[in-house]
Amino acid sequence: MATETVYAELTAALKRVHALGTLVELLGWDEQVNLPEGAAEQRAGQQAALAEALHAAASDAKIGGWLATLEADATLSDDQRAVVKNARRDYDHATRLPAEFVRDKAAQSSRGYHAWARARAADDFAGYAPVLRKNLEFAKREAGYLGWGGREYDYMIDQHDPGMTAAVIERLFGELKAGLVPLVREIAAARVKPRTDALRGFSPEGQRVFLREVTERLGFDYQRGRIDVSLHPFCSGTGSDVRMTTRFKEQEPLDSLFSAIHETGHGLYEQGLVAEHLGTALGVHAGMAVHESQSRLWENQVARSRGFWQCFEPRLRELFPAQTAAVSTDELYLAINAVEPTLIRVDADEVTYNLHIILRFELEKKLFTGELAVDGLPAAWRTAAQALLGLTPANDRVGVLQDVHWSGGSFGYFPSYCLGNMLAAQLWYRALALRPALEDDFARGDFRWLLNWLRENVHAQGRRFDALALARRVTGEELSPRHLLRYLRERYGALYLR
Amino acid sequence: MATETVYAELTAALKRVHALGTLVELLGWDEQVNLPEGAAEQRAGQQAALAEALHAAASDAKIGGWLATLEADATLSDDQRAVVKNARRDYDHATRLPAEFVRDKAAQSSRGYHAWARARAADDFAGYAPVLRKNLEFAKREAGYLGWGGREYDYMIDQHDPGMTAAVIERLFGELKAGLVPLVREIAAARVKPRTDALRGFSPEGQRVFLREVTERLGFDYQRGRIDVSLHPFCSGTGSDVRMTTRFKEQEPLDSLFSAIHETGHGLYEQGLVAEHLGTALGVHAGMAVHESQSRLWENQVARSRGFWQCFEPRLRELFPAQTAAVSTDELYLAINAVEPTLIRVDADEVTYNLHIILRFELEKKLFTGELAVDGLPAAWRTAAQALLGLTPANDRVGVLQDVHWSGGSFGYFPSYCLGNMLAAQLWYRALALRPALEDDFARGDFRWLLNWLRENVHAQGRRFDALALARRVTGEELSPRHLLRYLRERYGALYLR
Repeated sequence: MATETVYAELTAALKRVHALGTLVELLGWDEQVNLPEGAAEQRAGQQAALAEALHAAASDAKIGGWLATLEADATLSDDQRAVVKNARRDYDHATRLPAEFVRDKAAQSSRGYHAWARARAADDFAGYAPVLRKNLEFAKREAGYLGWGGREYDYMIDQHDPGMTAAVIERLFGELKAGLVPLVREIAAARVKPRTDALRGFSPEGQRVFLREVTERLGFDYQRGRIDVSLHPFCSGTGSDVRMTTRFKEQEPLDSLFSAIHETGHGLYEQGLVAEHLGTALGVHAGMAVHESQSRLWENQVARSRGFWQCFEPRLRELFPAQTAAVSTDELYLAINAVEPTLIRVDADEVTYNLHIILRFELEKKLFTGELAVDGLPAAWRTAAQALLGLTPANDRVGVLQDVHWSGGSFGYFPSYCLGNMLAAQLWYRALALRPALEDDFARGDFRWLLNWLRENVHAQGRRFDALALARRVTGEELSPRHLLRYLRERYGALYLR
Repeated sequence: MATETVYAELTAALKRVHALGTLVELLGWDEQVNLPEGAAEQRAGQQAALAEALHAAASDAKIGGWLATLEADATLSDDQRAVVKNARRDYDHATRLPAEFVRDKAAQSSRGYHAWARARAADDFAGYAPVLRKNLEFAKREAGYLGWGGREYDYMIDQHDPGMTAAVIERLFGELKAGLVPLVREIAAARVKPRTDALRGFSPEGQRVFLREVTERLGFDYQRGRIDVSLHPFCSGTGSDVRMTTRFKEQEPLDSLFSAIHETGHGLYEQGLVAEHLGTALGVHAGMAVHESQSRLWENQVARSRGFWQCFEPRLRELFPAQTAAVSTDELYLAINAVEPTLIRVDADEVTYNLHIILRFELEKKLFTGELAVDGLPAAWRTAAQALLGLTPANDRVGVLQDVHWSGGSFGYFPSYCLGNMLAAQLWYRALALRPALEDDFARGDFRWLLNWLRENVHAQGRRFDALALARRVTGEELSPRHLLRYLRERYGALYLR
């Protein structure tokens, strides 16, 4: 067969596999949003059957044959090469892991989750430690099967961020930490204290109206997506069917709003992928760091800006006159940009959040190199929390037991959050350089320039470039934490360090 | 392998195939209830990928091997034999149709739908006739592939109602027609006229509350199901995840209520299947006639009864005091049991509905035997409508073009509706014989005896018995239209022929 024919066969197969993958996601969405309470077991059977069908499609030997043909073909275009490279990665993942290992790992992951939930409730790290050791073992075996022996932690990182390595992260996080720890100390010592408890009694109905207006104005296309309510906010789906969720807390309206804007950032990325390429490297996201850069940029750089609130503050006051009467414009803006170190990552503000990630990265890395044993984790966590956050957890529930990720074997995921913050700030200053009046756009409720720029330079690129290459290409320089440090010092310095 | 091992392998595979099938249904539900407008094309790709995966699983040669082994095994229990028989039916259907035929038929079915929609809008039967001829040809070829050559219409009927034949239906419908046509004439000539337009302005919110209370009281388990809004009401899902839909018409509250109760009947059946057998013949419904018997029994025999309204009328008046103030109890009950011949099947009341089905059956049958050519359909329809309903369609939009079914190649489906009505009445009188105080139960809001009796005798039986065998087994006599005729004459005679 001619190259074009083989390539067409391959991409058609990739799209079918991808379509099945989107159904796995849809089932996950449905489970969070719609599933009747009593249907959990039946749903597990549906998921297992779909997973099996997906695996059969993804490991079809024909794909392997087409890949071998195309990899030996010197006439491929850059785009075609990117598609083949990514397909090879997925195909190896689908075919190189023994079926028995996949089954055992899934069972271990499920056991791990329950062991973690029990251990956290009982503040019993010792009861969790064996699971964690087993999860590490599984992760290392998996890396071995895929040819990453000796670079196991890099393998885990690469799963979430293709092309990223622990060495690169270590350098970036080192620089970030050096600038960030002093900034957090300065803010903590400042006399400015936000009145975060002044905003109370926001009805879900009113919040829903506000949130819909905001997300629509930012550019989320409700003809190609929707928003529902779930316990934990998330964004799923892709292309023309992107489904976000949020939750409404009457006493914490900013929580609902900013988590919805965060998910909107993810949603805009997925809606910005090129429809005809969905399912190949030209039409899937570039990795979790880039994904987080999109959610963070809209949530933080955009929606915590003065310009944004010049546009939306009047509407907020119109919808909630009584609830906002006692709060001045400056007080509102300060509450939106509240900074206060906390032990809990998911409660952390934009400034200290990064320190939580650095802490986890440093411990994960040592777990993989063997410098740190699982038993030593709680103590290491406490030491690191004190050094980074200036706080020491009173128990492991607010320390090493707080996150679910490791319980299911998800190592190497945490760094993406912080890398995303770095990339968001770097993209932000590049956008500002190209269009200095960006905040004036926002004040007029116009977010089109920014969205179009991201569409063209990030979303429509799919997986052609990894996070590092994308930063280089779009901003003209290597990914660096200095933009994030500059941004945090500018925004929060102005508020807290006057 | 020992019988038990082979049987276990087979049932495990059947359950996986069934689980994938439930996902097809879930996608259908999602499309009606949730899908963003712009996502239709992407969804088509998902459906195609899932259909392909389902077909691969259903036609796995291992299933064929297990079936051959078990079919040659004389030691199987009756239940095992029922499972094997049904699995053979499904396996043959998955494997005996050439892939090309399946593809062509799907394309034809899609073209047919659009051609019908165009033709109906333009009242242009001639534009639809070629599609109909093609659909008949596809149906006959399909019957041939599956070994039903010469019995093509029986094959189509058997698709919806395993074990049923055109000859049986012809006899049953003949008897029914003989009793029903005069009854409809008598009612039409009666002086009693229901005030169906007296019930107006029922808010969707109030209707939602009432409907939820009613369906829950009937026994629908909302821990294992849900109800949502869609353009056309339907019920999908099975076991512990049964999803019904309804719609709210402010000026036609009885439409919303009775369609929801109809779907509840379907839902109760699906919730009553035995969880451990889901996906084998012991845990799937027995066919469309039995399914319709369940929806109709709850909708008609139960929810149009005096006892039912003794229970729920006070609550309806409580929720809608102004809207019901001018309507007496007798007027309300008459409106609930309004009879008026109409040309449109989906608008028909409980009495005349059966005549619409008989009409379609008689024409379908002649299309398959060749006694009637497609071109002769409009005239034949008009003649039959006059003979059966006493009405002549002024055009084909309210005649032969009104139904979607044939456009997609769905022949042999209509009879199930009327067979379901017959079986519902026959079950009803059997239940009454066992528990004469059934309507007193209803008046107290207690539907448990009836539901438990149906659970045990119908729902939990799965597909062990076809509609005819089930009637025989549960009621002690052959399926017969005389129970339906008795029921209609008792209920409607009392209201209209006093």
